[in-house]
Amino acid sequence: MILLDGRTTSEQIKKEITEKVEEIVRQGRKRPHLAAILVGDDGASQTYVNNKEKTCAQVGFKSTIVRMAENTTEERLLEEIRRFNEDSDVDGLIVQLPLPKHIDEQRVIEAIDPRKDVDGFHPVNVGKMVLGLPSYISATPDGIMELLERYKIETSGKHCVIIGRSNIVGRPLANLLSHKSIPGDCTVTICHSHTKNIKELTLQADIIVAALGRPGFLKGDMVKDGVVVIDVGITRVPADNKSGFRLAGDVLFEEVAPKASYITPVPGGVGLMTITSLLKNTLKASGI
Amino acid sequence: MILLDGRTTSEQIKKEITEKVEEIVRQGRKRPHLAAILVGDDGASQTYVNNKEKTCAQVGFKSTIVRMAENTTEERLLEEIRRFNEDSDVDGLIVQLPLPKHIDEQRVIEAIDPRKDVDGFHPVNVGKMVLGLPSYISATPDGIMELLERYKIETSGKHCVIIGRSNIVGRPLANLLSHKSIPGDCTVTICHSHTKNIKELTLQADIIVAALGRPGFLKGDMVKDGVVVIDVGITRVPADNKSGFRLAGDVLFEEVAPKASYITPVPGGVGLMTITSLLKNTLKASGI
Repeated sequence: MILLDGRTTSEQIKKEITEKVEEIVRQGRKRPHLAAILVGDDGASQTYVNNKEKTCAQVGFKSTIVRMAENTTEERLLEEIRRFNEDSDVDGLIVQLPLPKHIDEQRVIEAIDPRKDVDGFHPVNVGKMVLGLPSYISATPDGIMELLERYKIETSGKHCVIIGRSNIVGRPLANLLSHKSIPGDCTVTICHSHTKNIKELTLQADIIVAALGRPGFLKGDMVKDGVVVIDVGITRVPADNKSGFRLAGDVLFEEVAPKASYITPVPGGVGLMTITSLLKNTLKASGI
Repeated sequence: MILLDGRTTSEQIKKEITEKVEEIVRQGRKRPHLAAILVGDDGASQTYVNNKEKTCAQVGFKSTIVRMAENTTEERLLEEIRRFNEDSDVDGLIVQLPLPKHIDEQRVIEAIDPRKDVDGFHPVNVGKMVLGLPSYISATPDGIMELLERYKIETSGKHCVIIGRSNIVGRPLANLLSHKSIPGDCTVTICHSHTKNIKELTLQADIIVAALGRPGFLKGDMVKDGVVVIDVGITRVPADNKSGFRLAGDVLFEEVAPKASYITPVPGGVGLMTITSLLKNTLKASGI
Protein backbone atom coordinates (compact mmCIF):
# COMPACT_ATOMS: atom_id res chain seq x y z
CA MET A 1 0.00 0.00 0.00
CA ILE A 2 1.37 3.37 -1.03
CA LEU A 3 0.18 6.59 0.61
CA LEU A 4 -0.75 9.35 -1.84
CA ASP A 5 1.05 12.08 0.02
CA GLY A 6 -0.62 15.43 -0.49
CA ARG A 7 1.94 17.26 1.60
CA THR A 8 5.03 16.21 -0.34
CA THR A 9 3.26 16.51 -3.69
CA SER A 10 1.92 20.00 -3.05
CA GLU A 11 5.32 21.12 -1.76
CA GLN A 12 6.88 19.77 -4.95
CA ILE A 13 4.38 21.68 -7.11
CA LYS A 14 4.96 24.87 -5.12
CA LYS A 15 8.69 24.45 -5.67
CA GLU A 16 8.17 24.08 -9.42
CA ILE A 17 5.96 27.18 -9.50
CA THR A 18 8.47 29.17 -7.43
CA GLU A 19 11.18 28.32 -9.97
CA LYS A 20 8.97 29.40 -12.86
CA VAL A 21 8.18 32.69 -11.15
CA GLU A 22 11.86 33.34 -10.44
CA GLU A 23 12.63 32.68 -14.07
CA ILE A 24 10.03 35.09 -15.44
CA VAL A 25 11.03 37.77 -12.95
CA ARG A 26 14.65 37.36 -14.09
CA GLN A 27 13.36 37.95 -17.62
CA GLY A 28 12.00 41.27 -16.40
CA ARG A 29 8.33 40.26 -16.54
CA LYS A 30 5.79 40.95 -13.81
CA ARG A 31 4.94 38.57 -11.00
CA PRO A 32 1.61 36.70 -11.23
CA HIS A 33 -0.96 38.57 -9.16
CA LEU A 34 -3.86 37.00 -7.30
CA ALA A 35 -6.62 39.17 -5.86
CA ALA A 36 -9.01 37.82 -3.23
CA ILE A 37 -12.19 39.35 -1.88
CA LEU A 38 -13.41 38.34 1.55
CA VAL A 39 -16.84 39.46 2.70
CA GLY A 40 -17.71 39.24 6.39
CA ASP A 41 -15.75 37.76 9.26
CA ASP A 42 -16.35 34.02 9.13
CA GLY A 43 -13.40 32.46 10.97
CA ALA A 44 -12.80 29.58 8.56
CA SER A 45 -12.96 31.87 5.52
CA GLN A 46 -10.43 34.24 7.11
CA THR A 47 -8.07 31.33 7.72
CA TYR A 48 -8.42 30.13 4.13
CA VAL A 49 -7.76 33.58 2.70
CA ASN A 50 -4.79 34.14 4.99
CA ASN A 51 -3.35 30.79 3.94
CA LYS A 52 -3.79 31.65 0.30
CA GLU A 53 -1.99 34.95 0.87
CA LYS A 54 0.85 33.17 2.67
CA THR A 55 1.22 30.59 -0.09
CA CYS A 56 1.24 33.31 -2.76
CA ALA A 57 4.13 35.01 -0.95
CA GLN A 58 5.89 31.66 -0.68
CA VAL A 59 5.91 31.06 -4.45
CA GLY A 60 6.65 34.69 -5.32
CA PHE A 61 3.17 35.78 -6.42
CA LYS A 62 1.86 39.22 -5.67
CA SER A 63 -1.43 39.11 -3.79
CA THR A 64 -4.10 41.61 -2.85
CA ILE A 65 -6.81 40.97 -0.31
CA VAL A 66 -9.86 43.16 -0.06
CA ARG A 67 -11.85 42.66 3.12
CA MET A 68 -15.45 43.87 2.99
CA ALA A 69 -17.91 44.15 5.85
CA GLU A 70 -20.55 41.47 6.46
CA ASN A 71 -23.29 43.96 5.52
CA THR A 72 -21.70 44.94 2.19
CA THR A 73 -24.31 45.16 -0.54
CA GLU A 74 -24.24 42.89 -3.56
CA GLU A 75 -23.86 45.97 -5.75
CA ARG A 76 -20.75 47.13 -3.85
CA LEU A 77 -19.24 43.65 -4.18
CA LEU A 78 -20.00 43.55 -7.91
CA GLU A 79 -18.34 46.95 -8.28
CA GLU A 80 -15.22 45.65 -6.57
CA ILE A 81 -15.21 42.65 -8.92
CA ARG A 82 -15.54 44.94 -11.94
CA ARG A 83 -12.59 46.97 -10.69
CA PHE A 84 -10.40 43.85 -10.53
CA ASN A 85 -11.74 42.57 -13.86
CA GLU A 86 -10.49 45.78 -15.46
CA ASP A 87 -7.20 45.97 -13.59
CA SER A 88 -4.66 44.56 -16.04
CA ASP A 89 -2.14 43.96 -13.27
CA VAL A 90 -4.47 41.43 -11.63
CA ASP A 91 -4.26 37.98 -13.25
CA GLY A 92 -6.48 35.91 -11.00
CA LEU A 93 -9.50 36.90 -8.93
CA ILE A 94 -11.32 34.88 -6.31
CA VAL A 95 -14.23 35.69 -4.04
CA GLN A 96 -14.09 33.57 -0.90
CA LEU A 97 -17.25 31.51 -0.43
CA PRO A 98 -19.67 31.20 1.26
CA LEU A 99 -21.05 34.75 1.01
CA PRO A 100 -23.51 36.36 3.43
CA LYS A 101 -27.06 35.23 2.72
CA HIS A 102 -28.25 38.56 1.29
CA ILE A 103 -25.81 38.18 -1.64
CA ASP A 104 -26.59 36.01 -4.68
CA GLU A 105 -23.56 33.73 -4.90
CA GLN A 106 -24.19 32.59 -8.46
CA ARG A 107 -24.51 36.18 -9.66
CA VAL A 108 -21.19 37.01 -8.03
CA ILE A 109 -19.45 33.98 -9.58
CA GLU A 110 -20.73 34.95 -13.02
CA ALA A 111 -19.55 38.55 -12.57
CA ILE A 112 -15.91 37.46 -12.47
CA ASP A 113 -14.15 37.71 -15.82
CA PRO A 114 -13.83 34.04 -16.87
CA ARG A 115 -10.24 34.72 -17.90
CA LYS A 116 -9.45 35.62 -14.29
CA ASP A 117 -11.68 32.98 -12.70
CA VAL A 118 -8.87 30.92 -11.14
CA ASP A 119 -11.32 29.10 -8.85
CA GLY A 120 -12.88 27.63 -12.01
CA PHE A 121 -16.44 28.19 -10.80
CA HIS A 122 -17.75 30.34 -13.69
CA PRO A 123 -20.14 28.37 -15.94
CA VAL A 124 -17.90 29.15 -18.94
CA ASN A 125 -15.00 27.39 -17.27
CA VAL A 126 -17.17 24.52 -16.10
CA GLY A 127 -18.54 24.18 -19.64
CA LYS A 128 -15.09 24.24 -21.22
CA MET A 129 -13.82 21.68 -18.72
CA VAL A 130 -16.74 19.38 -19.56
CA LEU A 131 -16.17 19.85 -23.30
CA GLY A 132 -12.46 19.09 -22.91
CA LEU A 133 -11.39 22.60 -23.89
CA PRO A 134 -8.63 24.57 -22.08
CA SER A 135 -10.11 25.98 -18.87
CA TYR A 136 -9.46 26.64 -15.22
CA ILE A 137 -10.20 23.48 -13.28
CA SER A 138 -11.42 23.90 -9.73
CA ALA A 139 -9.32 23.06 -6.71
CA THR A 140 -10.34 19.62 -5.48
CA PRO A 141 -10.79 17.84 -8.83
CA ASP A 142 -7.55 19.33 -10.07
CA GLY A 143 -5.70 18.28 -6.91
CA ILE A 144 -6.93 14.71 -7.36
CA MET A 145 -5.90 14.67 -11.03
CA GLU A 146 -2.43 15.89 -9.98
CA LEU A 147 -2.08 13.10 -7.43
CA LEU A 148 -3.11 10.47 -9.98
CA GLU A 149 -0.71 11.90 -12.54
CA ARG A 150 2.29 12.34 -10.27
CA TYR A 151 1.97 8.88 -8.78
CA LYS A 152 1.63 7.54 -12.36
CA ILE A 153 -1.55 5.67 -11.51
CA GLU A 154 -2.92 3.84 -14.55
CA THR A 155 -6.44 5.14 -15.22
CA SER A 156 -7.11 4.17 -18.86
CA GLY A 157 -9.86 1.56 -19.05
CA LYS A 158 -10.16 1.42 -15.27
CA HIS A 159 -13.55 1.56 -13.61
CA CYS A 160 -13.74 4.60 -11.35
CA VAL A 161 -16.66 4.78 -8.92
CA ILE A 162 -17.29 8.27 -7.60
CA ILE A 163 -19.47 8.58 -4.50
CA GLY A 164 -20.99 12.05 -4.39
CA ARG A 165 -22.29 14.25 -7.20
CA SER A 166 -21.45 17.73 -5.91
CA ASN A 167 -20.67 20.50 -8.37
CA ILE A 168 -17.28 21.09 -6.77
CA VAL A 169 -15.98 17.52 -6.51
CA GLY A 170 -17.88 14.49 -7.78
CA ARG A 171 -19.42 15.92 -10.93
CA PRO A 172 -16.36 17.68 -12.36
CA LEU A 173 -14.20 14.67 -11.53
CA ALA A 174 -16.62 12.33 -13.32
CA ASN A 175 -16.27 14.52 -16.39
CA LEU A 176 -12.49 14.82 -16.17
CA LEU A 177 -11.82 11.12 -15.60
CA SER A 178 -14.07 10.03 -18.46
CA HIS A 179 -12.30 12.27 -20.97
CA LYS A 180 -9.86 10.99 -23.55
CA SER A 181 -6.83 12.19 -21.58
CA ILE A 182 -4.08 11.21 -19.16
CA PRO A 183 -5.16 10.77 -16.39
CA GLY A 184 -8.52 9.83 -17.85
CA ASP A 185 -10.15 7.29 -20.16
CA CYS A 186 -11.84 5.76 -17.12
CA THR A 187 -15.19 4.09 -17.21
CA VAL A 188 -16.88 6.30 -14.63
CA THR A 189 -19.84 5.54 -12.38
CA ILE A 190 -21.31 8.39 -10.38
CA CYS A 191 -23.21 7.41 -7.22
CA HIS A 192 -25.18 9.50 -4.76
CA SER A 193 -27.88 9.42 -2.12
CA HIS A 194 -30.36 7.73 -4.49
CA THR A 195 -27.98 4.92 -5.48
CA LYS A 196 -29.34 1.62 -4.28
CA ASN A 197 -26.57 -0.93 -4.60
CA ILE A 198 -23.51 1.09 -3.67
CA LYS A 199 -21.50 -1.81 -2.26
CA GLU A 200 -22.08 -3.85 -5.40
CA LEU A 201 -20.63 -0.96 -7.40
CA THR A 202 -17.65 -0.14 -5.15
CA LEU A 203 -16.69 -3.84 -5.16
CA GLN A 204 -16.24 -3.56 -8.94
CA ALA A 205 -14.18 -0.40 -8.77
CA ASP A 206 -10.49 -0.13 -9.65
CA ILE A 207 -10.53 3.45 -8.37
CA ILE A 208 -12.90 4.86 -5.74
CA VAL A 209 -13.38 8.55 -5.00
CA ALA A 210 -15.30 9.06 -1.76
CA ALA A 211 -16.72 12.56 -1.67
CA LEU A 212 -19.97 12.39 0.23
CA GLY A 213 -18.97 13.87 3.59
CA ARG A 214 -19.90 10.89 5.78
CA PRO A 215 -17.05 9.88 8.09
CA GLY A 216 -15.97 6.25 7.70
CA PHE A 217 -18.58 5.49 5.02
CA LEU A 218 -16.35 3.30 2.84
CA LYS A 219 -15.54 0.14 4.75
CA GLY A 220 -13.15 -2.74 4.11
CA ASP A 221 -15.80 -5.12 2.85
CA MET A 222 -16.87 -2.61 0.17
CA VAL A 223 -13.60 -2.67 -1.81
CA LYS A 224 -11.62 -5.21 -3.76
CA ASP A 225 -7.92 -5.92 -3.34
CA GLY A 226 -5.60 -3.50 -5.10
CA VAL A 227 -8.11 -0.66 -5.29
CA VAL A 228 -6.94 2.96 -5.54
CA VAL A 229 -8.79 5.08 -2.96
CA ILE A 230 -9.15 8.85 -2.98
CA ASP A 231 -10.74 10.19 0.19
CA VAL A 232 -12.17 13.68 -0.21
CA GLY A 233 -14.08 13.68 3.08
CA ILE A 234 -12.88 15.96 5.81
CA THR A 235 -15.33 16.14 8.70
CA ARG A 236 -14.69 17.27 12.26
CA VAL A 237 -15.66 14.51 14.67
CA PRO A 238 -15.46 14.71 18.47
CA ALA A 239 -12.22 13.29 19.86
CA ASP A 240 -10.57 12.90 23.21
CA ASN A 241 -7.71 15.32 22.60
CA LYS A 242 -6.72 18.94 23.22
CA SER A 243 -8.83 20.45 20.44
CA GLY A 244 -11.74 18.15 21.22
CA PHE A 245 -12.03 16.98 17.59
CA ARG A 246 -10.19 15.18 14.84
CA LEU A 247 -10.55 15.27 11.06
CA ALA A 248 -12.21 12.19 9.65
CA GLY A 249 -12.35 11.10 6.02
CA ASP A 250 -15.17 9.28 4.22
CA VAL A 251 -13.01 6.14 4.22
CA LEU A 252 -12.51 3.82 7.19
CA PHE A 253 -8.78 3.95 6.70
CA GLU A 254 -7.75 1.11 9.01
CA GLU A 255 -10.01 -1.33 7.15
CA VAL A 256 -9.55 -0.09 3.58
CA ALA A 257 -5.83 0.76 3.54
CA PRO A 258 -4.62 -2.85 3.90
CA LYS A 259 -6.55 -3.80 0.74
CA ALA A 260 -5.59 -0.71 -1.28
CA SER A 261 -2.70 -0.31 -3.70
CA TYR A 262 -2.80 3.47 -3.21
CA ILE A 263 -4.76 5.56 -0.73
CA THR A 264 -4.91 9.18 0.39
CA PRO A 265 -4.65 9.83 4.13
CA VAL A 266 -6.94 12.31 5.91
CA PRO A 267 -5.52 14.73 6.81
CA GLY A 268 -2.46 14.96 4.58
CA GLY A 269 -4.06 13.86 1.32
CA VAL A 270 -6.45 15.65 -1.04
CA GLY A 271 -7.00 18.62 1.30
CA LEU A 272 -3.41 19.77 0.98
CA MET A 273 -3.56 19.58 -2.80
CA THR A 274 -6.35 22.11 -3.25
CA ILE A 275 -4.08 25.14 -2.98
CA THR A 276 -1.95 24.00 -5.92
CA SER A 277 -4.78 24.41 -8.43
CA LEU A 278 -5.19 28.05 -7.43
CA LEU A 279 -1.48 28.66 -7.94
CA LYS A 280 -1.36 26.80 -11.26
CA ASN A 281 -4.44 28.64 -12.53
CA THR A 282 -3.06 32.03 -11.50
CA LEU A 283 0.21 31.23 -13.23
CA LYS A 284 -1.73 30.27 -16.35
CA ALA A 285 -3.87 33.41 -16.12
CA SER A 286 -0.71 35.51 -16.04
CA GLY A 287 0.15 34.07 -19.45
CA ILE A 288 2.94 31.71 -18.40
CA MET B 1 -42.51 -4.08 -24.56
CA ILE B 2 -43.57 -0.52 -25.25
CA LEU B 3 -42.16 1.48 -28.16
CA LEU B 4 -40.94 4.96 -27.24
CA ASP B 5 -42.53 6.66 -30.18
CA GLY B 6 -40.57 9.74 -31.23
CA ARG B 7 -43.02 10.61 -33.98
CA THR B 8 -46.15 10.82 -31.84
CA THR B 9 -44.30 12.48 -28.96
CA SER B 10 -42.68 15.16 -31.10
CA GLU B 11 -46.01 15.84 -32.83
CA GLN B 12 -47.62 16.24 -29.41
CA ILE B 13 -44.91 18.72 -28.33
CA LYS B 14 -45.26 20.68 -31.56
CA LYS B 15 -48.99 20.86 -30.97
CA GLU B 16 -48.45 22.22 -27.46
CA ILE B 17 -45.99 24.81 -28.76
CA THR B 18 -48.35 25.84 -31.56
CA GLU B 19 -51.08 26.47 -28.99
CA LYS B 20 -48.75 28.58 -26.86
CA VAL B 21 -47.70 30.64 -29.87
CA GLU B 22 -51.31 31.20 -30.89
CA GLU B 23 -52.07 32.33 -27.39
CA ILE B 24 -49.27 34.89 -27.21
CA VAL B 25 -50.08 36.19 -30.68
CA ARG B 26 -53.69 36.63 -29.55
CA GLN B 27 -52.29 38.66 -26.67
CA GLY B 28 -50.65 40.94 -29.25
CA ARG B 29 -47.12 39.82 -28.57
CA LYS B 30 -44.58 38.98 -31.25
CA ARG B 31 -43.98 35.50 -32.63
CA PRO B 32 -40.82 33.67 -31.50
CA HIS B 33 -38.14 34.15 -34.14
CA LEU B 34 -35.41 31.66 -35.00
CA ALA B 35 -32.50 32.70 -37.23
CA ALA B 36 -30.29 30.11 -38.89
CA ILE B 37 -27.04 30.58 -40.73
CA LEU B 38 -25.98 27.99 -43.29
CA VAL B 39 -22.49 28.17 -44.77
CA GLY B 40 -21.71 26.21 -47.95
CA ASP B 41 -23.81 23.76 -49.82
CA ASP B 42 -23.57 20.45 -47.99
CA GLY B 43 -26.67 18.49 -48.96
CA ALA B 44 -27.45 17.08 -45.53
CA SER B 45 -27.05 20.49 -43.87
CA GLN B 46 -29.40 22.06 -46.42
CA THR B 47 -31.99 19.40 -45.67
CA TYR B 48 -31.66 19.97 -41.92
CA VAL B 49 -32.02 23.73 -42.25
CA ASN B 50 -34.98 23.42 -44.60
CA ASN B 51 -36.69 21.07 -42.16
CA LYS B 52 -36.09 23.46 -39.30
CA GLU B 53 -37.62 26.28 -41.37
CA LYS B 54 -40.62 24.12 -42.21
CA THR B 55 -41.17 23.14 -38.59
CA CYS B 56 -40.91 26.76 -37.47
CA ALA B 57 -43.67 27.67 -39.91
CA GLN B 58 -45.72 24.72 -38.66
CA VAL B 59 -45.70 25.93 -35.03
CA GLY B 60 -46.12 29.60 -35.95
CA PHE B 61 -42.54 30.79 -35.39
CA LYS B 62 -40.97 33.37 -37.62
CA SER B 63 -37.72 32.15 -39.15
CA THR B 64 -34.88 33.72 -41.07
CA ILE B 65 -32.29 31.75 -42.97
CA VAL B 66 -29.06 33.30 -44.15
CA ARG B 67 -27.17 31.23 -46.71
CA MET B 68 -23.51 32.06 -47.07
CA ALA B 69 -21.08 30.79 -49.69
CA GLU B 70 -18.69 27.92 -48.95
CA ASN B 71 -15.73 30.31 -49.19
CA THR B 72 -17.17 32.85 -46.72
CA THR B 73 -14.47 34.06 -44.36
CA GLU B 74 -14.69 33.45 -40.64
CA GLU B 75 -14.75 37.21 -40.10
CA ARG B 76 -17.79 37.62 -42.36
CA LEU B 77 -19.59 34.83 -40.54
CA LEU B 78 -18.77 36.38 -37.16
CA GLU B 79 -20.14 39.71 -38.41
CA GLU B 80 -23.39 38.03 -39.39
CA ILE B 81 -23.60 36.46 -35.93
CA ARG B 82 -23.02 39.84 -34.29
CA ARG B 83 -25.80 41.32 -36.38
CA PHE B 84 -28.26 38.67 -35.16
CA ASN B 85 -26.96 38.95 -31.59
CA GLU B 86 -27.90 42.62 -31.65
CA ASP B 87 -31.20 42.21 -33.45
CA SER B 88 -33.80 42.31 -30.70
CA ASP B 89 -36.41 40.71 -32.95
CA VAL B 90 -34.33 37.52 -33.18
CA ASP B 91 -34.81 35.23 -30.17
CA GLY B 92 -32.81 32.19 -31.16
CA LEU B 93 -29.76 31.85 -33.40
CA ILE B 94 -28.18 28.71 -34.77
CA VAL B 95 -25.27 28.14 -37.10
CA GLN B 96 -25.64 24.84 -38.92
CA LEU B 97 -22.67 22.54 -38.32
CA PRO B 98 -20.32 21.29 -39.66
CA LEU B 99 -18.67 24.43 -41.01
CA PRO B 100 -16.12 24.52 -43.86
CA LYS B 101 -12.65 23.57 -42.65
CA HIS B 102 -11.16 27.07 -42.86
CA ILE B 103 -13.57 28.28 -40.15
CA ASP B 104 -12.90 27.69 -36.44
CA GLU B 105 -16.13 26.03 -35.25
CA GLN B 106 -15.51 26.58 -31.54
CA ARG B 107 -14.87 30.28 -32.13
CA VAL B 108 -18.14 30.55 -34.03
CA ILE B 109 -20.09 28.74 -31.29
CA GLU B 110 -18.67 31.06 -28.65
CA ALA B 111 -19.55 34.14 -30.73
CA ILE B 112 -23.27 33.44 -30.38
CA ASP B 113 -24.93 35.34 -27.55
CA PRO B 114 -25.52 32.60 -24.94
CA ARG B 115 -29.04 33.98 -24.42
CA LYS B 116 -29.81 33.19 -28.07
CA ASP B 117 -27.85 29.92 -28.21
CA VAL B 118 -30.85 27.64 -28.70
CA ASP B 119 -28.61 24.78 -29.86
CA GLY B 120 -27.13 24.79 -26.34
CA PHE B 121 -23.56 24.43 -27.61
CA HIS B 122 -22.03 27.54 -25.99
CA PRO B 123 -19.75 26.63 -23.03
CA VAL B 124 -21.85 28.89 -20.78
CA ASN B 125 -24.93 26.81 -21.52
CA VAL B 126 -23.03 23.54 -21.19
CA GLY B 127 -21.63 24.75 -17.85
CA LYS B 128 -25.04 25.81 -16.56
CA MET B 129 -26.56 22.50 -17.62
CA VAL B 130 -23.83 20.61 -15.76
CA LEU B 131 -24.28 22.80 -12.67
CA GLY B 132 -28.04 22.25 -12.75
CA LEU B 133 -28.80 25.90 -13.52
CA PRO B 134 -31.41 27.03 -16.08
CA SER B 135 -29.88 26.70 -19.54
CA TYR B 136 -30.54 25.66 -23.11
CA ILE B 137 -30.10 21.91 -23.35
CA SER B 138 -28.94 20.56 -26.68
CA ALA B 139 -31.16 18.61 -29.02
CA THR B 140 -30.47 14.92 -28.52
CA PRO B 141 -30.10 14.84 -24.71
CA ASP B 142 -33.18 17.00 -24.35
CA GLY B 143 -35.16 14.79 -26.72
CA ILE B 144 -34.23 11.73 -24.66
CA MET B 145 -35.19 13.45 -21.40
CA GLU B 146 -38.56 14.34 -22.96
CA LEU B 147 -39.20 10.73 -23.96
CA LEU B 148 -38.33 9.49 -20.45
CA GLU B 149 -40.55 12.14 -18.91
CA ARG B 150 -43.55 11.75 -21.18
CA TYR B 151 -43.55 7.97 -20.90
CA LYS B 152 -43.25 8.40 -17.11
CA ILE B 153 -40.27 6.07 -16.93
CA GLU B 154 -39.00 5.75 -13.37
CA THR B 155 -35.36 6.89 -13.28
CA SER B 156 -34.72 7.65 -9.60
CA GLY B 157 -32.20 5.19 -8.17
CA LYS B 158 -31.98 3.32 -11.47
CA HIS B 159 -28.62 2.39 -12.95
CA CYS B 160 -28.22 4.02 -16.33
CA VAL B 161 -25.35 2.84 -18.51
CA ILE B 162 -24.45 5.25 -21.29
CA ILE B 163 -22.31 3.93 -24.14
CA GLY B 164 -20.48 6.82 -25.79
CA ARG B 165 -18.98 9.95 -24.26
CA SER B 166 -19.54 12.50 -27.03
CA ASN B 167 -20.03 16.14 -26.13
CA ILE B 168 -23.39 16.21 -27.90
CA VAL B 169 -24.99 13.05 -26.51
CA GLY B 170 -23.32 10.78 -23.95
CA ARG B 171 -21.62 13.38 -21.78
CA PRO B 172 -24.50 15.85 -21.38
CA LEU B 173 -26.91 12.99 -20.79
CA ALA B 174 -24.66 11.54 -18.07
CA ASN B 175 -24.77 14.91 -16.36
CA LEU B 176 -28.51 15.38 -16.77
CA LEU B 177 -29.50 11.89 -15.60
CA SER B 178 -27.30 12.07 -12.50
CA HIS B 179 -28.83 15.36 -11.35
CA LYS B 180 -31.31 15.62 -8.52
CA SER B 181 -34.26 16.02 -10.87
CA ILE B 182 -37.12 14.28 -12.64
CA PRO B 183 -36.15 12.53 -14.85
CA GLY B 184 -32.84 12.07 -13.06
CA ASP B 185 -31.39 10.76 -9.81
CA CYS B 186 -29.90 7.86 -11.78
CA THR B 187 -26.68 6.15 -10.86
CA VAL B 188 -24.87 6.77 -14.14
CA THR B 189 -22.03 4.81 -15.73
CA ILE B 190 -20.37 6.31 -18.78
CA CYS B 191 -18.63 3.82 -21.09
CA HIS B 192 -16.55 4.38 -24.19
CA SER B 193 -13.91 2.87 -26.46
CA HIS B 194 -11.54 2.27 -23.52
CA THR B 195 -14.11 0.43 -21.39
CA LYS B 196 -13.05 -3.16 -20.93
CA ASN B 197 -16.04 -5.03 -19.52
CA ILE B 198 -18.92 -3.42 -21.34
CA LYS B 199 -21.19 -6.46 -21.31
CA GLU B 200 -20.72 -6.88 -17.56
CA LEU B 201 -21.90 -3.27 -17.15
CA THR B 202 -24.83 -3.33 -19.59
CA LEU B 203 -26.11 -6.51 -17.90
CA GLN B 204 -26.45 -4.51 -14.67
CA ALA B 205 -28.26 -1.60 -16.33
CA ASP B 206 -31.88 -0.66 -15.74
CA ILE B 207 -31.58 1.92 -18.53
CA ILE B 208 -29.15 1.76 -21.46
CA VAL B 209 -28.37 4.64 -23.80
CA ALA B 210 -26.48 3.43 -26.87
CA ALA B 211 -24.77 6.40 -28.52
CA LEU B 212 -21.59 5.08 -30.06
CA GLY B 213 -22.51 4.94 -33.74
CA ARG B 214 -21.88 1.23 -34.33
CA PRO B 215 -24.86 -0.49 -35.96
CA GLY B 216 -26.22 -3.42 -33.96
CA PHE B 217 -23.62 -3.09 -31.19
CA LEU B 218 -26.00 -3.83 -28.29
CA LYS B 219 -27.10 -7.45 -28.55
CA GLY B 220 -29.71 -9.50 -26.73
CA ASP B 221 -27.24 -11.25 -24.44
CA MET B 222 -25.93 -7.89 -23.18
CA VAL B 223 -29.14 -6.75 -21.48
CA LYS B 224 -31.29 -7.95 -18.62
CA ASP B 225 -35.04 -8.46 -18.73
CA GLY B 226 -37.13 -5.33 -18.33
CA VAL B 227 -34.38 -2.93 -19.43
CA VAL B 228 -35.23 0.49 -20.89
CA VAL B 229 -33.27 1.01 -24.12
CA ILE B 230 -32.59 4.34 -25.82
CA ASP B 231 -30.97 3.94 -29.22
CA VAL B 232 -29.23 7.09 -30.44
CA GLY B 233 -27.39 5.44 -33.31
CA ILE B 234 -28.45 6.28 -36.83
CA THR B 235 -26.05 4.92 -39.43
CA ARG B 236 -26.67 4.33 -43.12
CA VAL B 237 -25.97 0.72 -43.98
CA PRO B 238 -26.23 -0.82 -47.44
CA ALA B 239 -29.61 -2.45 -48.09
CA ASP B 240 -31.32 -4.20 -50.93
CA ASN B 241 -33.97 -1.55 -51.54
CA LYS B 242 -34.65 1.43 -53.81
CA SER B 243 -32.39 3.89 -52.00
CA GLY B 244 -29.68 1.26 -51.55
CA PHE B 245 -29.43 1.86 -47.79
CA ARG B 246 -31.37 1.68 -44.56
CA LEU B 247 -30.92 3.47 -41.22
CA ALA B 248 -29.50 1.25 -38.50
CA GLY B 249 -29.38 1.94 -34.79
CA ASP B 250 -26.71 0.91 -32.28
CA VAL B 251 -29.11 -1.68 -30.89
CA LEU B 252 -29.87 -5.05 -32.47
CA PHE B 253 -33.57 -4.39 -32.19
CA GLU B 254 -34.87 -7.89 -32.95
CA GLU B 255 -32.78 -9.37 -30.13
CA VAL B 256 -33.07 -6.62 -27.54
CA ALA B 257 -36.70 -5.52 -27.97
CA PRO B 258 -38.22 -8.79 -26.65
CA LYS B 259 -36.31 -8.35 -23.37
CA ALA B 260 -36.97 -4.59 -23.02
CA SER B 261 -39.77 -2.89 -21.11
CA TYR B 262 -39.37 0.23 -23.28
CA ILE B 263 -37.27 0.75 -26.40
CA THR B 264 -36.85 3.44 -29.06
CA PRO B 265 -37.11 2.31 -32.67
CA VAL B 266 -34.67 3.49 -35.36
CA PRO B 267 -35.89 5.35 -37.29
CA GLY B 268 -38.89 6.84 -35.49
CA GLY B 269 -37.33 7.23 -32.03
CA VAL B 270 -34.75 9.70 -30.72
CA GLY B 271 -33.99 11.21 -34.14
CA LEU B 272 -37.48 12.66 -34.48
CA MET B 273 -37.28 14.22 -31.02
CA THR B 274 -34.27 16.43 -31.71
CA ILE B 275 -36.28 19.18 -33.40
CA THR B 276 -38.43 19.69 -30.30
CA SER B 277 -35.54 20.97 -28.21
CA LEU B 278 -34.85 23.69 -30.76
CA LEU B 279 -38.47 24.77 -30.66
CA LYS B 280 -38.69 24.67 -26.87
CA ASN B 281 -35.44 26.62 -26.50
CA THR B 282 -36.55 29.27 -29.01
CA LEU B 283 -39.85 29.63 -27.18
CA LYS B 284 -37.93 30.05 -23.91
CA ALA B 285 -35.53 32.55 -25.52
CA SER B 286 -38.51 34.62 -26.61
CA GLY B 287 -39.41 34.99 -22.96
CA ILE B 288 -42.39 32.63 -22.85
